[in-house]
Amino acid sequence: MSILDYLTGRRRKNSAQQAKERLQMVLVHEGARRRGPDFLPQMREEILQVISKYVEIDQEQLQIHLDRSDGYEVLELNVVIPEKRD
Amino acid sequence: MSILDYLTGRRRKNSAQQAKERLQMVLVHEGARRRGPDFLPQMREEILQVISKYVEIDQEQLQIHLDRSDGYEVLELNVVIPEKRD
Repeated sequence: MSILDYLTGRRRKNSAQQAKERLQMVLVHEGARRRGPDFLPQMREEILQVISKYVEIDQEQLQIHLDRSDGYEVLELNVVIPEKRD
Repeated sequence: MSILDYLTGRRRKNSAQQAKERLQMVLVHEGARRRGPDFLPQMREEILQVISKYVEIDQEQLQIHLDRSDGYEVLELNVVIPEKRD
């Protein structure tokens, strides 16, 4: 199974959302234990700033999820891109 | 199966790499058909610049993979973070 199958497979459950343009990002930091203060929340903000330069981000449709387990940090970000108006 | 199981499961096949600290990013752009020129390569460069502010990136250990299929663009990025020297 490809990563695309995995990510889009989850989405197919909700057919009402299929037509939307969206951006999904998954960031995994492995070996996080060995580093000092957690930099992922701050880095996430800067990555969001970069993304918002390229696509319009609807803040109400923005989902951010940060998960930690033994030695891992996982950041998931879902952005629904509003319809172009021009 | 969680996204973490999926991503780390692939990695476990290579046990020699387990001890390394690394950052993996997957970015999926869905509905890409409807937008004009492809912005993912340029956005990838800017995201890499952000990441390199937080972690040292070994350019020789950097893997970037861009895939396109019907209506999707998938960007995968693997960064091995060198051992801290301090």
